[in-house]
Amino acid sequence: MSIPDPVFRPAFNITRASHVVHRVRDLAKSRAFYVDTLGFVVSDDDHDTLYLRGLEEGCHHSIVLKTGAEPACERVGLRVLTEDDLDRAEAHFRTSGLPTRWVQAPFQGRTLHTSDPAGTPLEICASMQTKPRRIMHFETFHGACPQRIDHVQVLTRAVRPACEFYMAMGFRLSEYIVPDNSDELHAVFLQRKGNPHDIVFVNNAGPRLHHAAFTIPEVHHLMYVCDLLGRNGFGAGVEWGPGRHFGPGYARFVYLRDPDGHRVELFTNHYQTIDAEDEPIRWEMSDLNTRRWGTFPPDSWRQEGSAFAGVAAGHADTSASAREAAIVR
Amino acid sequence: MSIPDPVFRPAFNITRASHVVHRVRDLAKSRAFYVDTLGFVVSDDDHDTLYLRGLEEGCHHSIVLKTGAEPACERVGLRVLTEDDLDRAEAHFRTSGLPTRWVQAPFQGRTLHTSDPAGTPLEICASMQTKPRRIMHFETFHGACPQRIDHVQVLTRAVRPACEFYMAMGFRLSEYIVPDNSDELHAVFLQRKGNPHDIVFVNNAGPRLHHAAFTIPEVHHLMYVCDLLGRNGFGAGVEWGPGRHFGPGYARFVYLRDPDGHRVELFTNHYQTIDAEDEPIRWEMSDLNTRRWGTFPPDSWRQEGSAFAGVAAGHADTSASAREAAIVR
Amino acid sequence: MSIPDPVFRPAFNITRASHVVHRVRDLAKSRAFYVDTLGFVVSDDDHDTLYLRGLEEGCHHSIVLKTGAEPACERVGLRVLTEDDLDRAEAHFRTSGLPTRWVQAPFQGRTLHTSDPAGTPLEICASMQTKPRRIMHFETFHGACPQRIDHVQVLTRAVRPACEFYMAMGFRLSEYIVPDNSDELHAVFLQRKGNPHDIVFVNNAGPRLHHAAFTIPEVHHLMYVCDLLGRNGFGAGVEWGPGRHFGPGYARFVYLRDPDGHRVELFTNHYQTIDAEDEPIRWEMSDLNTRRWGTFPPDSWRQEGSAFAGVAAGHADTSASAREAAIVR
Amino acid sequence: MSIPDPVFRPAFNITRASHVVHRVRDLAKSRAFYVDTLGFVVSDDDHDTLYLRGLEEGCHHSIVLKTGAEPACERVGLRVLTEDDLDRAEAHFRTSGLPTRWVQAPFQGRTLHTSDPAGTPLEICASMQTKPRRIMHFETFHGACPQRIDHVQVLTRAVRPACEFYMAMGFRLSEYIVPDNSDELHAVFLQRKGNPHDIVFVNNAGPRLHHAAFTIPEVHHLMYVCDLLGRNGFGAGVEWGPGRHFGPGYARFVYLRDPDGHRVELFTNHYQTIDAEDEPIRWEMSDLNTRRWGTFPPDSWRQEGSAFAGVAAGHADTSASAREAAIVR
Repeated sequence: MSIPDPVFRPAFNITRASHVVHRVRDLAKSRAFYVDTLGFVVSDDDHDTLYLRGLEEGCHHSIVLKTGAEPACERVGLRVLTEDDLDRAEAHFRTSGLPTRWVQAPFQGRTLHTSDPAGTPLEICASMQTKPRRIMHFETFHGACPQRIDHVQVLTRAVRPACEFYMAMGFRLSEYIVPDNSDELHAVFLQRKGNPHDIVFVNNAGPRLHHAAFTIPEVHHLMYVCDLLGRNGFGAGVEWGPGRHFGPGYARFVYLRDPDGHRVELFTNHYQTIDAEDEPIRWEMSDLNTRRWGTFPPDSWRQEGSAFAGVAAGHADTSASAREAAIVR
Repeated sequence: MSIPDPVFRPAFNITRASHVVHRVRDLAKSRAFYVDTLGFVVSDDDHDTLYLRGLEEGCHHSIVLKTGAEPACERVGLRVLTEDDLDRAEAHFRTSGLPTRWVQAPFQGRTLHTSDPAGTPLEICASMQTKPRRIMHFETFHGACPQRIDHVQVLTRAVRPACEFYMAMGFRLSEYIVPDNSDELHAVFLQRKGNPHDIVFVNNAGPRLHHAAFTIPEVHHLMYVCDLLGRNGFGAGVEWGPGRHFGPGYARFVYLRDPDGHRVELFTNHYQTIDAEDEPIRWEMSDLNTRRWGTFPPDSWRQEGSAFAGVAAGHADTSASAREAAIVR
Repeated sequence: MSIPDPVFRPAFNITRASHVVHRVRDLAKSRAFYVDTLGFVVSDDDHDTLYLRGLEEGCHHSIVLKTGAEPACERVGLRVLTEDDLDRAEAHFRTSGLPTRWVQAPFQGRTLHTSDPAGTPLEICASMQTKPRRIMHFETFHGACPQRIDHVQVLTRAVRPACEFYMAMGFRLSEYIVPDNSDELHAVFLQRKGNPHDIVFVNNAGPRLHHAAFTIPEVHHLMYVCDLLGRNGFGAGVEWGPGRHFGPGYARFVYLRDPDGHRVELFTNHYQTIDAEDEPIRWEMSDLNTRRWGTFPPDSWRQEGSAFAGVAAGHADTSASAREAAIVR
Repeated sequence: MSIPDPVFRPAFNITRASHVVHRVRDLAKSRAFYVDTLGFVVSDDDHDTLYLRGLEEGCHHSIVLKTGAEPACERVGLRVLTEDDLDRAEAHFRTSGLPTRWVQAPFQGRTLHTSDPAGTPLEICASMQTKPRRIMHFETFHGACPQRIDHVQVLTRAVRPACEFYMAMGFRLSEYIVPDNSDELHAVFLQRKGNPHDIVFVNNAGPRLHHAAFTIPEVHHLMYVCDLLGRNGFGAGVEWGPGRHFGPGYARFVYLRDPDGHRVELFTNHYQTIDAEDEPIRWEMSDLNTRRWGTFPPDSWRQEGSAFAGVAAGHADTSASAREAAIVR
């Protein structure tokens, strides 16, 4: 079972990871975390919803927080380039036997609800209301100065089906992890926008959302935002890092848990990968973490994730070998 | 005369600015500047050519330096995604009345030599030999830690024709500058890879190359590389900055002149622009440089550029109004 | 005329530069500059005075701003260790023929007004009210995150008398500048606290205050505070830099002019100099600025300074040789 | 049992922590760690000794590494200002019943060997050969760019006697830790040079050296040096951090173990404390670590230290309460 060939001229153009929609129990606490501490910009808010974007984002939102009884991730958002691409996407998901439904979503154009073979609930649109980019509004910068959403990571037992489905839609596989001397896909890093990730699938009970990741400008922001989280009462939410990944992406990261346990990765660096000759980088388990330093991820990072609202997830694998495998990001 | 509509599904896929080919008089001096001081990686070298790449680049080269009697820029390199795209590109340039020629270029796949309506000599290919990315080879990092080529800027009187030609090939116009109350295009910032620039055209005598720009990781690298340039005898080559652009791109930059006068921009930050609703940002002259700080660019920055080898250039406009206009990047 | 020997066991213990007292025309504008933009902490304020300190300072103030009809520097503050040292200092200044007067200064202990042989109006005390250090109050950090006062620089024609007077009181000469092949002191850098400067005297019309200098944590703060100054309407106040000194101190600096023209240096780095074997570093004019990069200081930086309130100053030397000399910091 | 009063005019002038002398088993490995990776400068070396200094140090050495069969710390070095101070120090230690001996130490002036009431073997001198400061030799900077020695930390059961002894010699107590509602000194932070530490004593089996600490310029160096340690095979030597202390000093730190287990702290920030009104900051155990984030120190950090050569140490206290106490730095 080999890696599929890339599709360089897909039938429709999914462009990037777009946003996440989370249910949270206390919007005021979420605001204290995301806005007052991390530094996200409020694009809109009402009694029970908060729409946030990063400092460089000109689109309306990359995080939507809705009041709910139980924390859950409602949707992972993807963008297509045009309305025509959206119609073609709808047809493709439908003919693939996946559920599709047109919905109204505030501040977004026509919006498609569907899900992928891993069971990830998706929300796809071609347009969003625009907002001013804050890149030069220095007087509003604070916290981690989050720039933009970069990618999401999903836990699933269906890593290979997910990989094949996304690659058929033109996603490139930038890196992947297999057990030693095996072709079983443990984790796949898939991208459309020309850097290593838009969506990542890792083998674990699922479907669940492991994290949404946002770029921040510099290393000192990684350290500073932790100090600020501590001061603001969120110190226990610093789950892992600041540190360095010694596997796919090689990012300098910190992983946070928001007040409802949703995981946020802040990171500073990725590489550009656009060219056709960029082959997927294969990592065997024993290649990972060579020349590493720093603490290993805690159990919480290796086993926990946000449930998808209304989607049943399997059981987390807590065997030693699974935990070993899960050490990798 | 309005801005053309974007072409979301171009007939062929130019993906990014790829490389520059420069003639230099003394390869040892160039190596002292680019490799020993700025921190570029040598991919290959022979008696009279040096092939360089940035730390994150997996392609063979983003700078080619060839020994020559007189400094000049030989070619600006662009990448297409596939060999099929390359054939379609050749047909498009040819039927547009532009010269096309297939050549052999070391370490590159099939290579097309052509030029654009501004007279920029182009070199287009779909593939290059790959080299290991150095992103985790920390022990080799030094100088400015240059990451990758980002864009080139060309001086020309044919700004509008260049804009229309590139947009017809799927380039998006991220930002542009016009005189106050005018639609005359003074500068256009065109992109394919999802950030503000791949190629920029600015109104001045041309065609000439104003600069090639490379990303560096953090602000402290901007300051540090200047210190190092000073120590290594290249202090006079720090032409402008470190500073901040108060116009298109808003980059934190430093502009350098290499030992042959070729200009290099190092900068730390750009924003992502992918979505169809991202409208070109219009700057009138009087919008520029509001809320600015720091020195204005020196005359050299406003008027000088690298000649393209074998291409006649017009005369630089040294009138006051042109200089005023040229203040903008 | 050689350099005096250091006095390792002075009769009284002046410990450090302590504060500056400035007259400003509009306290609201000064607050917008120093507090809202640079990030100083307000220790106290009333109708016509503002007391500021840096983030790490546990003393009440390092800057005092008083409303006045004309901008001027009222006093340069020095600290002695104990009340006993203060009495001995008073006796020393008095027996040296210098004016001494005991005054009441808010938030300070017993305070001595005097002046040095250069005519610098001094305010010396052994104690000040304490305030909480803000070093861990990360949620209040903003702007340049100024840490503490470091030194002041005074313009005077009496460089040698000032040098001899301060060295006799135990100040160490860390560095000094002379014309080529000369022992005429052009600039002297004097210190008590174990880094290169507490008070600096430079040859020019005086006595005038050239600047007060404050430490900031990192290089990125140097660049960021300029961006913020621009946004907040103070962009023209960025007088020189960010840059690097290529002479005494080797600091990474930016020089600012406050709304009344008082000059503030922010810088990131100095070295420790405590040991008896640390000889004063001699710079001849032609040693300066070797291996430099970046813009030379503007005329304003070379010639302008704050008048001392009620103290007549000579005329600035605008001859070419003086300007040449004044290029050095 | 209260805190002693500070002695503002001590009989002799100890100025600062000066150096550490370590026995190591393999000088080549130590060089790979300290020089090639951390970035210390080699002042001198011979067959079995390596003399190192930081980039800003003008004195000959702050670390001396000697080949030995077993790892141990031979001496902690202190500096006095003058030869006269050295003679007075010798008299003071001798009349305090402590062993004193004049020795020859390479590159140092007259050198006194003695020990303090905690049993710390000390080496005191007034002068050392000078070497050029490297502050502007940017082309030699690499690794963590270590600037200078800042302080040493000693484990001992005799915290109070050590505190009283050092304070009687003019050391100021900047901060200290006691159990809740107790005056038993758990840890004392003592300084001469005007920032929080020159020598620290913490309650644990001793005398042993816990660590020597060196300043580095910026936060990004903290993260970068870890990456480099990993690449160079020293990743397991990153014992704790990069992180932030939530107790005395509030430093941003990383703790490393060298190839022989000697512990090195690299940190970026301390505050100035010179004034007489700066009262020692009292921390009760339960005050510590409030508003913290990040991992707690590993057992190794809490219990291990370098034996002093030829000095018997008590047993480390591994009871739960002691470990609790030892969580604090």
